Formats: sequence, C-alpha cells, structure tokens
Amino acid sequence: MNAAQTARSVAATAEAAATASREWARADRTVRAAALDAVAARLDAAADELVPTAMRETHLPEPRLRGELGRTTFQLRLFAEVLRDGSYLDARIDTADPEWPMGPRPDIRRTLVPLGPVAVFAASNFPFAFSVIGGDSASALAAGNAVVVKTHPGHPDLSAATAAVVVAALAGDGAPQDLFQLVSGIDEGRELLLAPQIRAGAFTGSIAGGRALFDLAQQRPDPIPFFGELGSVNPVFVTREAARRRAEEITAGFVGSFTLGAGQFCTKPGVLVHPRDSDLRELLAAHDLPAPAPLLNDRIQQGYVAGLGTLAGNDGVEPLRFDDGALADPPAPSLVATDLKYVLDNPAVLDEVFGPASLLVAYDDEDELLALAELLPGQLTATVVGEEDDRIAPALLERLADRAGRVLWNQWPTGVTVSHAQQHGGPYPATTAPGTTSVGTAAITRFLRPVAFQNLPQSLLPAELRDGGPAPALVNGTPSGGSR
Amino acid sequence: MNAAQTARSVAATAEAAATASREWARADRTVRAAALDAVAARLDAAADELVPTAMRETHLPEPRLRGELGRTTFQLRLFAEVLRDGSYLDARIDTADPEWPMGPRPDIRRTLVPLGPVAVFAASNFPFAFSVIGGDSASALAAGNAVVVKTHPGHPDLSAATAAVVVAALAGDGAPQDLFQLVSGIDEGRELLLAPQIRAGAFTGSIAGGRALFDLAQQRPDPIPFFGELGSVNPVFVTREAARRRAEEITAGFVGSFTLGAGQFCTKPGVLVHPRDSDLRELLAAHDLPAPAPLLNDRIQQGYVAGLGTLAGNDGVEPLRFDDGALADPPAPSLVATDLKYVLDNPAVLDEVFGPASLLVAYDDEDELLALAELLPGQLTATVVGEEDDRIAPALLERLADRAGRVLWNQWPTGVTVSHAQQHGGPYPATTAPGTTSVGTAAITRFLRPVAFQNLPQSLLPAELRDGGPAPALVNGTPSGGSR
Repeated sequence: MNAAQTARSVAATAEAAATASREWARADRTVRAAALDAVAARLDAAADELVPTAMRETHLPEPRLRGELGRTTFQLRLFAEVLRDGSYLDARIDTADPEWPMGPRPDIRRTLVPLGPVAVFAASNFPFAFSVIGGDSASALAAGNAVVVKTHPGHPDLSAATAAVVVAALAGDGAPQDLFQLVSGIDEGRELLLAPQIRAGAFTGSIAGGRALFDLAQQRPDPIPFFGELGSVNPVFVTREAARRRAEEITAGFVGSFTLGAGQFCTKPGVLVHPRDSDLRELLAAHDLPAPAPLLNDRIQQGYVAGLGTLAGNDGVEPLRFDDGALADPPAPSLVATDLKYVLDNPAVLDEVFGPASLLVAYDDEDELLALAELLPGQLTATVVGEEDDRIAPALLERLADRAGRVLWNQWPTGVTVSHAQQHGGPYPATTAPGTTSVGTAAITRFLRPVAFQNLPQSLLPAELRDGGPAPALVNGTPSGGSR
Repeated sequence: MNAAQTARSVAATAEAAATASREWARADRTVRAAALDAVAARLDAAADELVPTAMRETHLPEPRLRGELGRTTFQLRLFAEVLRDGSYLDARIDTADPEWPMGPRPDIRRTLVPLGPVAVFAASNFPFAFSVIGGDSASALAAGNAVVVKTHPGHPDLSAATAAVVVAALAGDGAPQDLFQLVSGIDEGRELLLAPQIRAGAFTGSIAGGRALFDLAQQRPDPIPFFGELGSVNPVFVTREAARRRAEEITAGFVGSFTLGAGQFCTKPGVLVHPRDSDLRELLAAHDLPAPAPLLNDRIQQGYVAGLGTLAGNDGVEPLRFDDGALADPPAPSLVATDLKYVLDNPAVLDEVFGPASLLVAYDDEDELLALAELLPGQLTATVVGEEDDRIAPALLERLADRAGRVLWNQWPTGVTVSHAQQHGGPYPATTAPGTTSVGTAAITRFLRPVAFQNLPQSLLPAELRDGGPAPALVNGTPSGGSR
C-alpha cells in the first residue's frame, strides 16, 4: 500500500472500532464477562492448531508455549471474574448533604467508564500472553473498549490465526462487529496511534520502539494515555551473609533465572550484585549452563550480539563465561563481570541486553549497595537475596521500592503471576506510566476513566450508582453493598 | 538571575526536595495527617492576614475569599482523614497458593508508595484553593511527597504569605525541612519541571500554558506524569420540555452560574444550547445581569477581551447582551448567540472565553443535540437541563459521559464540592490525564505508584501489607481488615 492507501485503510479500521466501542461500552458487565470466557474456551480448544504455528515462528519449545497459552486463557477468565464482581468500578456515592463542612453538597456519584478504542502493540517474546490477545487486549476489552492490535512481525501467521479464533468467539457470543481488529506494518501502527478515534495506546517491547510511539501519542493535537512497558535490567542484590550461607543455592537459582527462555524475558536478572569475598563468582565460573538455544528471530539475535558486544567491550568489564559461542547463532549463555565502583562511574553498563547474558557486579562494602540502588533507572523488578536480620535490608528495600515496580526477597524475578496484587510496571524506562500495571487485575484501570454524575434521577444513573446497586460502592465514605 | 544562576538555584531546590521527600515518605500516615491538620489550623488562624492580601491582589470580594480559604482548609483536613483511614493505599495481599490455576503463586503484596517530589504550578483564579496550598499541594503532601510550588504571578504577596504559614506549621509539627518550597518565574518553572529529582507535575490554568508544560514533561529523558487541568466550555443542554416548563427558573440559574465570580471559573457554563422555539432567548435578553466587576489581573482582562472579540466577530454569531461595556475594563457580563448548525460547521466558537460571557446556541430538532455532543472536545463538565421522561435524555447523557468528567442534571456546573465521589477532570483538553481527578479524595492517587513486594518476611513489609495490618486490604481477592 502507498501512504494514502495506508491512511485510508487505518482510518476505516479506527472508525469501525469507534462504532463497536460505543456498543460494547453499553453492554452489561456480565455480557462482557461471558464473551471473555468464550474467547478463552475457543483458544484452549484451538491449542493444537496455534501451538505448532507458534513453535515454527518463535523457536520457543512446545511446553513453554502450551503453558503460555494456559496463562493467556486464565487471564481472560480472571478478567471475567473481575467484571462480575464489579469492585473494579470503584463506585462512589455521596448523597446530598446540606451540612457538609465546606458548604451544602449535591448528590454526586462516580464510576469508571471505558476510554474508547485502544491500540495495542504486540510483543515478540510472549506470542500469546503479550501479543494479540494478551494482557493488554484482555484488560482493554474487559474495560469495555474496542481493540485494534498492531501485530508483531515476528509471528504473523500466529497473529492471524489467534485473531481468527478471537473474532469467531466474540461473534458467536453476540459482541459487536469490528470489536477486535488487526493491523500490520510500522506505518500502519503509527497511523493507528494518530487516529482521532483511538483513545489510548498499550505497548510491550524495546525502549527505542516504545519511546517513539509514546512521543507520537503525546504529540497528537489531543494527547492520549500511552501505557508502554519498555525495558529493565532487574538487578539482584546478594547480601554478604546470604552469599556466605547459601552460595550454591543462589548460583543455581540465578543461572536458572537468567537463562530461562534463553533470557528473553523482560524480568530477566541482567545484573547480579555480589560480595567480592564470596564463593559466588567461582561457583558461577564452574556451574553448568544450558545449551545454546535459538532466539526469537533475527532482529533479536542481532540486537543481542550488538548489546552483549558493547557490554563486554567495556574496559572495566571482563569475561567470566564468554567464549566464541557467546556471540554465535544460537548464542551460548554468557556471564561478564565488573565491580560496583566501575558501574557507578559507567552506568551505561546497566543498559538492558535482551538474551541469555548477565553482568556480575562485585562489591566490597555492603553500604555501596545503597549508592547503586539510588543510581538505578526505573525497573520492573529489583531483588534482594538476604537474611532477615541483615543490617542493610530495610534501607536497601526502601530504596529499591523507590526505583522498581516489584521488589522480591529470596526469589527470582522471572515468572510473573497474574493475580490481584501483581504489579508489572515501574518508573521510566521500565514503563511510560508508573502509576499503572500491565499484569494483574489492576491492569483494567488503565483503560477506564472516572465520571461523576451529579443530581441524576435514579432511572438515568448507571446501574452501579443507583441506591442498592449491583456492585460494591463507597457510600458517603463507607464501603457497602454488592459482593463486598 | 541569569540563566546559569536560575538553573543552579532550581537545582538546589530540587535536591533539597528530594531529601525531604525521602524522609516524609517514611513518616507514618498518622504523622502526615497531623501535619496537614496543623497546616489547616494555622491557615484558619491567619485568615485576617491572608484575606486582605488576596483582596488587594486578585480583586475578588472578601466573602468569596473567606469561603475559599475555608474550602482550602477543609480539603487539608479531608486528606488527613483519608490518611488515617488508609483505604487509599488499595492494599492487596495474595498469599502463596500452590493451586493457583496458572501455576503456583508466590506470596505477593501490593501497596502504593509516594512518587517523589512534585512540581505544582499554581492557578490565578482560586488564590487559595488552586494555588500555593490548594488541592494539588494538599494531595501531593498527603501522598507522602515533597512539594515545590511555582507561584502564580497574579498574587505574589499572598503566595509568599501563604507559604510562610505552611512552612511554619510543618516545622512546628516536625516535618522535614524543605518539604514545602516555592519558586517564582517562568524560567524557574521550566527548570523545575526538568529537574531529575522532580517525579510529577501538576497544573491548573490555560490550554496554551498547560500544553507547553505538558510537552516539556513528556520530552524529558525520563518523561514524568503531568496532571494538567487546562480548559473547558462546560456546555449546558436544555431539552424542549424543560424549556417549556421552566424557562424562568433556567434563565435565573444560568445567569447566576455564568456570571459567578465574574465568569472566572473553569466550570463556567460557556455554552447554553436551547430550543429555538422557547422563551429562553427572550428572557435572557431581558434578565438583570450583575454589574461589571474587575477581573483577576490585566492578563486575564486582555485575554478575555481578545477571546470575546473573536467569538463575537464570527459572522454567524450575533450580539444578545453585548454593548460598549462588554469589552470595557471592568467588563459588563455579555451574551452572544448562534445556532447549532453554525457550531457544527465552526467548532472554534466552542473555544473557552475565560470571563463573564456565554454563547447561546439555538436548535430546531432535539436530535441535533447528539451531533453536537459527539463533536465536543473533552470537558470538565456537561449539563443536561431536562425532564426525567425526555426521550433524548439517556442517549444524550451517554454521549456527554464520553466527553466530560462530570455530568450534571438540572443543576449548574459552577461550585465543585470536595468529596469522595467528586471528579474534576476529563479528556483532553479538559485535562492531560483523563484517568485522574484534581478535586476530591481520589486526587491523592495521582501522586502514588503501586509496588508489589514478593516473598518478604513480615518484619520487612510495609505495615499495611503485614498480616492483620492497620489498613483495609483485599486479601486473596476478598476485602478485609482495617476500618473496612
């Protein structure tokens, strides 16, 4: 397509999404919940068609992909539960109060309404859970919005096959036509994000790609929210006492985590900060590493080789597990090493390298950990491997909570459960919207907007704002009603 | 100061704010609540000093300013209550669950933590409630952040006097030094928003000014959230039946609302959409209007004359109450008129004119109201004056809820109560962050960020995430504990 054709085609897609979004916003929450359940059921039933396609296009192994599809359908069903419960609406009812201290208060009632059509930019590394019908699409649909997915070029056939399943399930359940659409291509994605009908963007991917789209969304005549999950090195801090007591356990856990899925997780621990006077470095120098595994696609492979080459090329960074195989295709897992003082002077060594590599950082004095924690750019996760009575623990955890969306203790950051309390986010560059999460039930809030209704008759109020309505509500400041 | 001096001075302010913010974030919620109460008490006690200063600098009358100061201190005390209650933390506890359907779930607990130092850009039209210690400062402090206010040049003496009271109250209550600071000047404001220590911006003012600051915040190497409340015309839609039954009541209510405070409210009804075949236009042509009142300052006066001149100069807009006094200083309240078809073709007539003027828009067919509602840019408020059985009401309310943050029925939009259910926001250009509010208890959420803690021992968890902790929490998806 030439530029004009692309623009016309995307404009028609966006217009159809706006019409569908209006109708979907009107649908009862239980109707939307049933549709999400129907999509989950059809996806589960299509596993034997979808998984082989995913294997072919992503080089990921079958058990991982079947597990990921299960996570994806679980996520859809969990959002269906969220819809049926209704707490997510954060309904608030303040009845008229002539004695309100600042002056008579009118009857005012607040709920959340859908933002409108959402543009979802799919990721490559989770071809189910963060792609066509992953967390962004599921939460945007649950919130009551039409979705247009810009597919990832890494798995085009899987994207089309997945969308076909989703569209068939939605149609079978009576959802509006064009509620769920795809576009492909970089120009198409940009046009989509600029379409006046699109009211929010969501993205999982690289810092460069995410920043470019974020900038585009903010430079619109009417800027829109853009929820980008970009990059993170997920540092792990090992205290002196933990290294002394549990060096072998830590070694095994760390190797398992940084090489999981060939290191292609946004939560891969890319930095391990350890006491110089421990056995960790020696143990890691000798520990078995997994065999080389092909990366997702050529672009990821090239990016990995370039990034790891830059990191290893620093004069203060030395090889630990880094031979000819490290930069081969497929690459052997590798480890390079430096010390904390070098990192403080050369923070660029903290740049994310997406793939099976990690950087060991040796420290001499535990207090140096606090200096490094303060220097960190925003992170999805930060981990402390420590003992409960470690003197440094409270201060270190406090500083890491100021820099990361999830702070772990004696566990590894890879593996992000989908639950009520999950938080997958963090200050920039971890995300472009630090107040939000892209995983867990709270992710739905991204695609909603509060509206207060003042002095409306009961008959004209949204159902959840009527007296004794069907959802939990905060009534004059006190929780009441619904399932709460 | 020259540019280098300005930069150094602002950098020192931001660095001091970062230190104070870290300490304040650590303070117990009840300590922060007590400090807010202390600020409120000192402000109330200083009324006889502050109000005359405000009168001199803003031309606003004494009763209005005393009322506004009361609103401001009420707001501080309401946030103190919010802190003591603890529900605002949205604490969520998911205990470890080996049977979680997508795979074993770790113990994961989520709360909200302060973003860090906030830059607050004060407004001119509410010298107390949206200025130095207005809603933005109060909610940012309550959330646990240091605040640096960029003062509004319209009331410099009041800004300094207010800040002195706030700082003395905070110091008397043991809050960290430099928790609350001021800067003045356009360049200083820009430098402040670009300082790496600043983690969020908040603004109330014009579209042009707010957009420039929003762009600056988004173009940082690390973009930060910017909560701008910019502009709105707050349209009022009168149905045919309401106009037939209640024309005199509507006339009086509308005149009272659009001229309140000389029309210098962000919720002033700037457009009244009425049936052509009603008495409303004739009644408005004859109704008493308030005497001319001086506007806040010369810049507002100049902007008003320019904006009203442009509006009245449209060939499809005719004068209704518009004589020589309309563009004088002080200006007489004025009304101009057009019809709905003209507005659809010339949407620029919907641009906000800040001051005592409004635009009447006549319609022939009630269904035209839906077309106009869809054309609206984002609004803080939209109002329907109607009868409960009006055929158009449900569809019109639905469309207005898609375009506005607050939707009213048979009341007037001026007067924004501070309560749990209040929503003062809306899609761009009403605000730059449609998911948030700048008034009401939910405003605190803007300055917080979720963090999940995984597998932490009880002793290292934030208090509200411990088993049986001191705040309400969602435990494994079920509300429990605290005051809930």
